[in-house]
Amino acid sequence: MTELNRLDLGKKTLAQVDGPAADNVMNSLKDIAPDVGKYIFEFAFGDIYNRPTLDLKQREMITITSLLTQGDTAAQLDVHINAALNVGLSETEIIETFIQCLPYVGFPKVLNAINVAKEVFKNRE
Amino acid sequence: MTELNRLDLGKKTLAQVDGPAADNVMNSLKDIAPDVGKYIFEFAFGDIYNRPTLDLKQREMITITSLLTQGDTAAQLDVHINAALNVGLSETEIIETFIQCLPYVGFPKVLNAINVAKEVFKNRE
Amino acid sequence: MTELNRLDLGKKTLAQVDGPAADNVMNSLKDIAPDVGKYIFEFAFGDIYNRPTLDLKQREMITITSLLTQGDTAAQLDVHINAALNVGLSETEIIETFIQCLPYVGFPKVLNAINVAKEVFKNRE
Amino acid sequence: MTELNRLDLGKKTLAQVDGPAADNVMNSLKDIAPDVGKYIFEFAFGDIYNRPTLDLKQREMITITSLLTQGDTAAQLDVHINAALNVGLSETEIIETFIQCLPYVGFPKVLNAINVAKEVFKNRE
Amino acid sequence: MTELNRLDLGKKTLAQVDGPAADNVMNSLKDIAPDVGKYIFEFAFGDIYNRPTLDLKQREMITITSLLTQGDTAAQLDVHINAALNVGLSETEIIETFIQCLPYVGFPKVLNAINVAKEVFKNRE
Amino acid sequence: MTELNRLDLGKKTLAQVDGPAADNVMNSLKDIAPDVGKYIFEFAFGDIYNRPTLDLKQREMITITSLLTQGDTAAQLDVHINAALNVGLSETEIIETFIQCLPYVGFPKVLNAINVAKEVFKNRE
Repeated sequence: MTELNRLDLGKKTLAQVDGPAADNVMNSLKDIAPDVGKYIFEFAFGDIYNRPTLDLKQREMITITSLLTQGDTAAQLDVHINAALNVGLSETEIIETFIQCLPYVGFPKVLNAINVAKEVFKNRE
Repeated sequence: MTELNRLDLGKKTLAQVDGPAADNVMNSLKDIAPDVGKYIFEFAFGDIYNRPTLDLKQREMITITSLLTQGDTAAQLDVHINAALNVGLSETEIIETFIQCLPYVGFPKVLNAINVAKEVFKNRE
Repeated sequence: MTELNRLDLGKKTLAQVDGPAADNVMNSLKDIAPDVGKYIFEFAFGDIYNRPTLDLKQREMITITSLLTQGDTAAQLDVHINAALNVGLSETEIIETFIQCLPYVGFPKVLNAINVAKEVFKNRE
Repeated sequence: MTELNRLDLGKKTLAQVDGPAADNVMNSLKDIAPDVGKYIFEFAFGDIYNRPTLDLKQREMITITSLLTQGDTAAQLDVHINAALNVGLSETEIIETFIQCLPYVGFPKVLNAINVAKEVFKNRE
Repeated sequence: MTELNRLDLGKKTLAQVDGPAADNVMNSLKDIAPDVGKYIFEFAFGDIYNRPTLDLKQREMITITSLLTQGDTAAQLDVHINAALNVGLSETEIIETFIQCLPYVGFPKVLNAINVAKEVFKNRE
Repeated sequence: MTELNRLDLGKKTLAQVDGPAADNVMNSLKDIAPDVGKYIFEFAFGDIYNRPTLDLKQREMITITSLLTQGDTAAQLDVHINAALNVGLSETEIIETFIQCLPYVGFPKVLNAINVAKEVFKNRE
C-alpha cells in the first residue's frame, strides 16, 4: 500500500468513525502541526483501525477504556464517546465499559469519564 | 442480596474466570491483608463482573486494556491474559487489543504487555 | 452485615465526611450511572471508611495525597479538601500534606493541588 | 553556597527564564504556601537550572517533554512553553519536541500540549 | 540556615528515618550521580522532613501513599515501608493506609504495595 | 514516499541509532506481533526520527526524558540510553538530563532511570 492509499484510507475511516468531531481536531492542527493530523489519518486510522480481528465497536470500547485509564483526556473522550455511539455502541454499553474499570482504576477516573459522557449524551439528544 | 451472597457469587465468578491464578493472589493475601481478598471477591467479582450488558469476553478485553494503559501491572496482566483466554478470547484477539492501544499510549506500554502475553501463551502450550 | 446495612452505613458516613459536596456527586450520577453512586456509598464509605485502625483525619490525609499524586483529580480534590476540613484537619495540615509530596512527585502536581485548596479555603470563609 | 545565595540565584534565573509568568505563580503562592515558592526559587531554579553540562534551551526542551508526558500540566506547560521561547527555542523546535514524543506517549498527550502551545504562540504575537 | 547545615540536618534526619536502607541508595549514587544524593539529603530530608505541623509518622504515611499511587516504585516503597516502621507506624497501620487507597486507585496498585510490604515485614522478623 | 521506502528508511535509521539492541526487540516481536515491529520501523523510525528541525542527539534526549517521566519503562530506557550514547550524547549529559527532571517528577522516577543508566554504562565499558 502506498502512502497516498494510507492517507485516503485513514480519512475515509476517520470520517466514518468520528464524523464532524474529527474535522475540528484536524482544523485545529492545520496551521500549527499539520503533520500530526497526517499521522492521525495514516497511522491511527489508516493502519490501526483498518486491521482485521476486531470490529469498530470493539476498537472504540478499547479506546475509551484506554483514555479513561490514562487520565487528562476529556477532549479525546468527548471525540471517542461520540465515535463509540457512531459505530453502534449504546449509551448503556459505554457506561458499563466505564464501570468495568472501577476495580482497576478506582472511582475518580470513572467519575471523570462519566461526566464527559453525560455532556456528550445530552448534546446528541 | 446479602453480603454472604456477594462473597459466594464473587468466589464462583472468580473461579470461572481466573482459575488457579486467582488462588495464588488470595493465598498471598491470606496472612497480611485478608480483607483485600474479600473485597476482590465481593466488589470486583461479586458486584462488577456479574453485572448485565457486557459479557465476560468484553469485560476481560476492557480489563487488559486498562492494565496495559495503567502501567506497572505485569503481575495483574499475567492473571488477566490468562483470564481472557479462559473466557474465550483468542491469542490473536488479545494481541490485537494491545495493538489498538498503540495510537493512544505509544509503543512502550504495548511492548510491555506483549512481553507478558508471550510468557503466558508459552506457559499454557 | 447485609447489603442494606452497607448502603445505610455508607450514606451516614459520607454525609458526616463530605456533607453537601457528596450530594452533588450523587445527583450528577442519578440518571446516568446510579450504581456507581451506590458503590461509592457501599464500598468506599460503607466498607472502607468504617474500618478500624485509622481515624477519619488520617483517612482524608491519605485520600488527598492519593488524589494529588494521581493527577487530573481537581473535582475530587475539591470534595476531599472540604472533607478533610470537615473531619478536623486544619488548612495548615492540608498544605503541609501537599508539601510532603514534593520530593516524591515534583512541583507541578503540588501546585495543582494548592490551587484547588486555595479555592476551597476561600469559598468556606 | 549559603541559602541566601541559592534564593537570590534562583530568583535571578527564574526571572531570566520565565519572566512575568513566574511572578504569577509566586503571587498565587504568597498567602497559602510561600515556602513552596521559596523551594521553586532555591531548588528548581537555584540548584538545578544553574548546573553545568546542559544549556537553558536544552533544559527547557527536557522540561516541556516531561510536562507533556506527565499529563494534567496545562498551567505548567503554558509557563514553560513561554520559557522555552524566552531562552531561544523556536516555535518549530517546540512543536517538533512534542512530535518526537508521539511514539512514546501516543496522540492524546501530544494533542493536549499542542493546544497549549497554540494559545501561547497566539498570545505572544 | 547555610547549605552545610541543610546537608548535616538532612543526613541526621535520613539516618533517623531510613537507617541502613538509605546508605544503600547513597552508595549506589556515589559514582554516577552524587549530586542527586546531596539533593536527597538537603532538599528531601533537610528541608521537607524537618518542617513543622506534621510528625514523622504522618510524613511516612503520606510518602507511602504517594509511592503506592505513583506506581513503578517498588524500590522506594521498600525503603519507606521500612522507614514507616522505624518511626513508629505498625504493620497494621501500613496495610490499612494501603487499603484506604483502594477506592481511589483500584486493586492493582494496592496489591503491588502489599507485596512489597510482605517482603519487608518478613525480612525484619 | 511509498510504504516500502518508509520501512527501509526506518530500518536504516533504527540500525544507526539502536544497533543490536533493536534487533532484540524485533526478534522478540517476530512470532507474536510482527506488525508492531513493522510500525516501530515505519512510524517511529521511518516517519518521526527522520523529520527535520531536531538532530538525533536532541531526539534521544527527548526520548529518555519521556521514558523516565512515564515510568515502568526500564526495558525501553535500556535501549534508548544505549541509543543516546550511540548518537553522541555523553554519560554526563544523560545523567544531567535525568537531573533536570527532578523538579518536575520528584526523586523516585529519577532514581529508577539512574539505576538503568548505571547498568548500561557498566555493560558498555
